[in-house]
Amino acid sequence: MYRLALQRSVSSLCKFSKCEAKRLRLTAAQLRSSKVWNLGKINHIALVTPDLNKSTALYRDVLGGKVSDQQPLPEHGVTTVFVELGDTKIELLHPLGEKSPVQSFLDKNKSGGMHHICIEVDNIQKAMEDLRAQNIRLLSEQAKIGAHGKPVVFLHPKDCDGVLVELEEA
Amino acid sequence: MYRLALQRSVSSLCKFSKCEAKRLRLTAAQLRSSKVWNLGKINHIALVTPDLNKSTALYRDVLGGKVSDQQPLPEHGVTTVFVELGDTKIELLHPLGEKSPVQSFLDKNKSGGMHHICIEVDNIQKAMEDLRAQNIRLLSEQAKIGAHGKPVVFLHPKDCDGVLVELEEA
Repeated sequence: MYRLALQRSVSSLCKFSKCEAKRLRLTAAQLRSSKVWNLGKINHIALVTPDLNKSTALYRDVLGGKVSDQQPLPEHGVTTVFVELGDTKIELLHPLGEKSPVQSFLDKNKSGGMHHICIEVDNIQKAMEDLRAQNIRLLSEQAKIGAHGKPVVFLHPKDCDGVLVELEEA
Repeated sequence: MYRLALQRSVSSLCKFSKCEAKRLRLTAAQLRSSKVWNLGKINHIALVTPDLNKSTALYRDVLGGKVSDQQPLPEHGVTTVFVELGDTKIELLHPLGEKSPVQSFLDKNKSGGMHHICIEVDNIQKAMEDLRAQNIRLLSEQAKIGAHGKPVVFLHPKDCDGVLVELEEA
């Protein structure tokens, strides 16, 4: 009798646990679908180079890619060249001016290297609020207007596994 | 008389130089259009992470991306997770086994970081011949079968401005 009661209790508990697990999964799925901002495609991968002409020649003449003209962006402290590769771009960056934000990277990586990845979002304000609430540090209080004339924000590399991630509203 | 002859000579020389320059530009354009292999889209950006579960949670739960299951690839010495972002992917890599090719990267970059970019090509054999002829060093004599079951080859970072570039036939 006691054993039967125990079996019934365990059985009820298992059923409850399964229901609860199902409910929690539903809640997580609902949470995801109710997200008020969405991640889009990778907009670009930014590489810093010590020699913009040489890097441009590599991607254009050696690899046969389609590259843009050099674009000096004094307000961002960089000169850029874009390499079009399908839906995504490589952004070649070289320091411009005395307070370039990529100079210290080049000082540490004399040959150049991979600097950041930029992922598109559909609503940067909502993304920033949500990420702050999830303890992801942002590198600026407000979104700034980036190299493409669109609002951007950078996430702290220490909160993104050592990778500098830029979000761009697109 | 002497001055006139000199002017004519200079004029002829200028015309010849212009013709020659035009001819050389045509040759360069012809060379590009006659390339027997073509660069395609960026297939993925590979990030090495010290904690695959944590990184997966970042891209899935915090950023709301679509991520794959973990895939152990003992023959490549890595466990991978792919994050689908439009036409391109982020490939999260974590060392697997004792001779993982990404272990030394992780030793140097304890928090993780950007490891390589992978660009598609339509003919890897022709690309390899052409790049060798242009003095770009390849990290293997032959193309190898990569994580997606397709032939891949890595280019020497010293010949690509400090960036490890993988080419994948797709």
